[in-house]
Amino acid sequence: MNDTTTAPQTSSVITHADLLKHWQGHRNLTRRLIEVFPEKEFFAFSIGGMRTAAALMKELLSIAAPGICEMATGTPKKLEHELDPQQTKAHLLKQWDEATDEINQYWAMIPVERFHDDILAFGMYPGKVWSSIMYFIDNEIHHRAQAYVYLRALGIEPPAFYER
Amino acid sequence: MNDTTTAPQTSSVITHADLLKHWQGHRNLTRRLIEVFPEKEFFAFSIGGMRTAAALMKELLSIAAPGICEMATGTPKKLEHELDPQQTKAHLLKQWDEATDEINQYWAMIPVERFHDDILAFGMYPGKVWSSIMYFIDNEIHHRAQAYVYLRALGIEPPAFYER
Repeated sequence: MNDTTTAPQTSSVITHADLLKHWQGHRNLTRRLIEVFPEKEFFAFSIGGMRTAAALMKELLSIAAPGICEMATGTPKKLEHELDPQQTKAHLLKQWDEATDEINQYWAMIPVERFHDDILAFGMYPGKVWSSIMYFIDNEIHHRAQAYVYLRALGIEPPAFYER
Repeated sequence: MNDTTTAPQTSSVITHADLLKHWQGHRNLTRRLIEVFPEKEFFAFSIGGMRTAAALMKELLSIAAPGICEMATGTPKKLEHELDPQQTKAHLLKQWDEATDEINQYWAMIPVERFHDDILAFGMYPGKVWSSIMYFIDNEIHHRAQAYVYLRALGIEPPAFYER
């Protein structure tokens, strides 16, 4: 097992390739959720004093590609959650697609052996590579599900959860 | 690598033991969310025509232990989402704790090599062992996050997402 990045990993609960596919499948679902949101409500609607869907989705953008870039290259990254006041849904979707490519690119630079390395994500959050990536995915599912409730409250059918 | 269940898995993105711990960490957070819900609203409150928190949490119970039991033992299971009309939060929390023990018990019966086996979860959902377990976890995060919005709408602070 010299090339563990590409070797079949029958001794692994989840392979290196499958975890990336799993994450990108979730990101694809989140993208479709953003698409069905009405432009105005995306930036204005919320429930119970929570952040708008736009702010939640911007948080996901600020974590995903910068987080994986930091792991792959060692370049320190800071969390930048602030929404551009001129932001539009179209612009955010463009950034989403750029992040998709970046994630694929940086993922290939992190061999499977490094997934158990100790890291400090964004200079603040201690964990392993694997647990930080799982946190990114879990956090996306969490905030996307909150945006599902916003859509339901607006009378709009969200995309099916099981379609990736 | 004869005993891959317990051997250190440096060639694995996530170890067999860590994935169980990750899941049980999420289940612990969900348990705390159930605890802070007011009894009445747990069974009555919802937004946008969605199911109540009780119905969502009952779905999670009907998936977790039966799903992993089916994988471990081969005994076919059916999804039973119906809430007992006499259900209380205390009873549901008791079932939650029983499921925690069952998941630990059945997990130990599924060696890491089996995680890439093709299965038909609940006789209906095709996938691998690993992808079905990830779906169980993702589905829990998804529905729990919706219950987070219910709590916020009720003016109640939910438990911190990052505390497991």
